Amino acid sequence: MAERTRIARYFAPLALEEAGSFSLTDDAAVITPPAGQSLVVTTDSVIESIHVLAGATAQQFAQKLMRRNLSDLAAMGATPWRYSVNLHTPKNLPDDWFAQFAATLGAEQHRFNLLLIGGDSTTGTGNIHTTMTCFGLINNAPLRRKGARVGDDIYVSGTMGDASYALTLLQQNTPIDEALASRYHCPIPRLKLGEMLHPIATSAIDISDGLVADISQITRASGVGATIQQEALPLSTCLKNAAIEPAQKYAFALSGGDDYELCFTAPPAKREAVATLATRLKLPLTRIGEITNGNAVEVLDETGQPIMLARAGYEH
Amino acid sequence: MAERTRIARYFAPLALEEAGSFSLTDDAAVITPPAGQSLVVTTDSVIESIHVLAGATAQQFAQKLMRRNLSDLAAMGATPWRYSVNLHTPKNLPDDWFAQFAATLGAEQHRFNLLLIGGDSTTGTGNIHTTMTCFGLINNAPLRRKGARVGDDIYVSGTMGDASYALTLLQQNTPIDEALASRYHCPIPRLKLGEMLHPIATSAIDISDGLVADISQITRASGVGATIQQEALPLSTCLKNAAIEPAQKYAFALSGGDDYELCFTAPPAKREAVATLATRLKLPLTRIGEITNGNAVEVLDETGQPIMLARAGYEH
Repeated sequence: MAERTRIARYFAPLALEEAGSFSLTDDAAVITPPAGQSLVVTTDSVIESIHVLAGATAQQFAQKLMRRNLSDLAAMGATPWRYSVNLHTPKNLPDDWFAQFAATLGAEQHRFNLLLIGGDSTTGTGNIHTTMTCFGLINNAPLRRKGARVGDDIYVSGTMGDASYALTLLQQNTPIDEALASRYHCPIPRLKLGEMLHPIATSAIDISDGLVADISQITRASGVGATIQQEALPLSTCLKNAAIEPAQKYAFALSGGDDYELCFTAPPAKREAVATLATRLKLPLTRIGEITNGNAVEVLDETGQPIMLARAGYEH
Repeated sequence: MAERTRIARYFAPLALEEAGSFSLTDDAAVITPPAGQSLVVTTDSVIESIHVLAGATAQQFAQKLMRRNLSDLAAMGATPWRYSVNLHTPKNLPDDWFAQFAATLGAEQHRFNLLLIGGDSTTGTGNIHTTMTCFGLINNAPLRRKGARVGDDIYVSGTMGDASYALTLLQQNTPIDEALASRYHCPIPRLKLGEMLHPIATSAIDISDGLVADISQITRASGVGATIQQEALPLSTCLKNAAIEPAQKYAFALSGGDDYELCFTAPPAKREAVATLATRLKLPLTRIGEITNGNAVEVLDETGQPIMLARAGYEH
C-alpha cells in the first residue's frame, strides 16, 4: 500500500476532529491553543529492542509510545490535547501492522482525550522506530523538577518496581500473567494526579529512568538532597510475593525504571491534602522520604544505615 | 559522556533564549504563541542512507534536518519560531559528533531565527536517526495545497533537478564542486517567498518528492488537473551544461525531488505581482504551466506532445 493510501485509510480518521490537521494531506498542521492556555510540548521515541522488546506488537508500540509521552505531560500537570507521530518501519512490514498501530492510537486518543495532527513515515532497513511529539495545555504554572524545599515530604504514586520485574521475567521468557506484563507494556500515565497536584506539590517528575535517578533530577534542579526510607517503598502484592531476595525487590523499586508513576514533593502541611487526593483518585500516594539540605539522594535501610546502590537507574 | 552532560554542554545553549525550555532539564517545555498568531507544526526525519548518504557528517545531518522541516513551514507561508529534536545514534559515536551536530543547529537557528525547546536521545545499534518537530507562526490563513483554480498559472522558485543530479553523481563517487553538492546536502528553504505569497498564491507546496509528484498533491487536493511545459522548466547552468542526454536532465527536473523549492499557483492577474516579488527576493520565479479542468498532471514537450514519465517521484 502506498504511503498516501495508508495515511488516508488508517491515520486520517484520527485527525478528523481537528480541522487544522487538514486530514494529514498538507505540509503542516495549523493549531491554536485556547486563549489563556500555554502549550506544554514533550517528545519521546519508542525503538524496537530499546523501549519495547524485539518483535513487539503494533499495539505494544502504540501504547508505550503514547503513554511515555503522556507521562511527561502528567509530570508537568498538563492536560493532553494534540500529538504527532513519526514512523520508520522495515520495507516488508505488512499493512496489517499499520492498521493495528493506528487502531491502538485511536483507542488511546479516545481514552486520554487528544487528537492526531500530523507526522511522517519512511520505510527502510533496521528496527522499527516510532516517535511522538505530544502537546498538552495548562492554564497555570507547570509543575517543575525545580522547587523542592528542605523538609518537604517525598511521595510516589502507585507501586514501584513492577515494570522492571516484569521486563526481567519477559526477557527470561518466564510466563507471567497479563496484569504484571501490562505494567511494562502498558503503563498508566498519572494525568489526573498531575492536574490536581498544582496546589499541593512543590516539584514533580515521572519515574522513567528509575526512582533514585529520577529523584536525583529533582534534587539537582532544586539544589537540595533527599533521604529515602527503603522499607517505605510501596511494593505491589505481586512483587512482595515474588520468590526472590528482598534486596532484589528493592533494587527493582529503587532503580528499575519504566514505572511511569509520579514522584513529587510537598510540605508536611499538605499531608492531609495528599491523603484526600489519594482517596479521591483511588490511587496510593505513599510518603517515602524527605528533602534534606544535602546534595545527594541517600537510601536508608530499616536500621537507618545508608544502602549502596549497584545502579541508580537507566543511563541513556 | 553521559546524556545529561551532553545535553547541558552542547544543546542547552541553543535553548537559552526560550525560558519555557527550562534549559532542557525538565519533563517538557512550556511555550505560548504570541497573541493572535496560530502555530504551524511540521515534523520530518532524516535517516542515514535514506535522506542523507551513509556516513554523512554531523553537519550534513543537522542542515538537512533543519531545512527539510523549514521548507514545510515555507510552503505554508509560516515564520520559523521553535523546534525540538530526537536523536538515535550508535553507542560508539564520539562526543565530537554531538558537538558538531549541535554547533550546526546553532548556526542554523541563528540564520533562520528559531530556538530549540526540547527533544530526546537514545543510543543503540543501527543507523543514525534524527527527527525534528518544527513550530512556525502565522497571523493569517496558511497557504494550502488546496485552492488552485482552473486557469491559474503554475510557478516554481529557483531551478529544478540539481539536488537529484548531485545525488546521482555523489552516489557514483564522481567528484563534484561544492555549489552543486550543497544543492543536495544543504537546500535553501524559501521562507521569505512563502511569507510573501499570501496575497498572491492560491495554493503552494514544497518540492521534496519530485515536481510532478508534488504538483499532483496540489491537483488532487484542489480537484483540478495541470499541464506543464517541459521546456519552460528552469534548469541551472550546471545542469544545462552537464554531458548527459536532455531527456535525463528533464527527468531530474520533473521527478528527482529533494530540491525544496516552492511550487505555487496564482491567477494570471497576478503575473506582475509575481515578477515584482522575484525581483525583490532576487529569486527566479518561473511560470511552467497552468491548472486545467482535468484530473491529471500532463507534461508536454516543445511540440505539445505528452511525455510519459518513467517515475513521477519518490514514493515513501
